[in-house]
Amino acid sequence: NDVSMVIGSCNVLGDKAQQWLGDALVLTGCEISVNTTPAIQRSPIKHIHKLNEEVYVVIAGNGAFEVDGEEFPIQEGSFVRVAPAGVRAIHAGDAGLVYLCIQAQAGSLTHKTMDDGELV
Amino acid sequence: NDVSMVIGSCNVLGDKAQQWLGDALVLTGCEISVNTTPAIQRSPIKHIHKLNEEVYVVIAGNGAFEVDGEEFPIQEGSFVRVAPAGVRAIHAGDAGLVYLCIQAQAGSLTHKTMDDGELV
Repeated sequence: NDVSMVIGSCNVLGDKAQQWLGDALVLTGCEISVNTTPAIQRSPIKHIHKLNEEVYVVIAGNGAFEVDGEEFPIQEGSFVRVAPAGVRAIHAGDAGLVYLCIQAQAGSLTHKTMDDGELV
Repeated sequence: NDVSMVIGSCNVLGDKAQQWLGDALVLTGCEISVNTTPAIQRSPIKHIHKLNEEVYVVIAGNGAFEVDGEEFPIQEGSFVRVAPAGVRAIHAGDAGLVYLCIQAQAGSLTHKTMDDGELV
C-alpha cells in the first residue's frame, strides 16, 4: 500500500505524554514520536542510541536541550540532530514542550532530494 | 560532533517556500525539508522516489494529499507516509500549508525505540 495516514492535531496527539507513530504509519525508514512535556519539567533520564541518529523538532513551547552535559535553549521551530553516542535529555521551560523525535539509522541515507526523486 | 541545531520558528522558516535542513544539521539517516504553500495552491507536479520513504507532517493549515490519483484531506497534525512508488502531490487549502517532509531509505530502520536506545 503506497500510503498510510494518521490525522489529528499535534496538540490532540500531545495529550499523551508520548505517542509512537511507526506502527500506525507502517514506517520502515524511520520512527517518529510525538511528545508533550508539562511546563518546568526536567527529564529525569538521559539516553544514547546504538545505531540511530535522532532529530528533535520543537512544534510548540520552549525549554532546553542537553547533550553531553551542555544545555542549549530551544523553542518552537528548533531542530536538533543528535548522533547516536550523544548523551541527551530534553527539558521543558515555562511554556511546556510539544516536540517530534525522529529516529533513523545513522549513515543509512544514500540518496536524497532530487538524486532520489523523479517527476512523473 | 554529537549535536547540531537550527533554531527558528517554523513560520519564519516557512517564509521560504522550501528549506532543506540536511546540510545544516549534518543529517546522515534522513533528510528533512520545511515547506510553505500559499492558500489555494495546487502542486503543479507529482513525483515518486527510487529508494526513499517519505513522511509528511502538517504543522499548520489545511489541504489535500494526493497519492496514486486519490486525494485525502489533511490538516494540522496530519502525518502521511508514502512508499517510494507512490505518485504524490500536496495541495494547500484555504488556510495554506506549513509542513515537514522527512525522507528516509525504505527498509533501512533495523532497530527502534528501546531496542536501540540505552539509558545512561
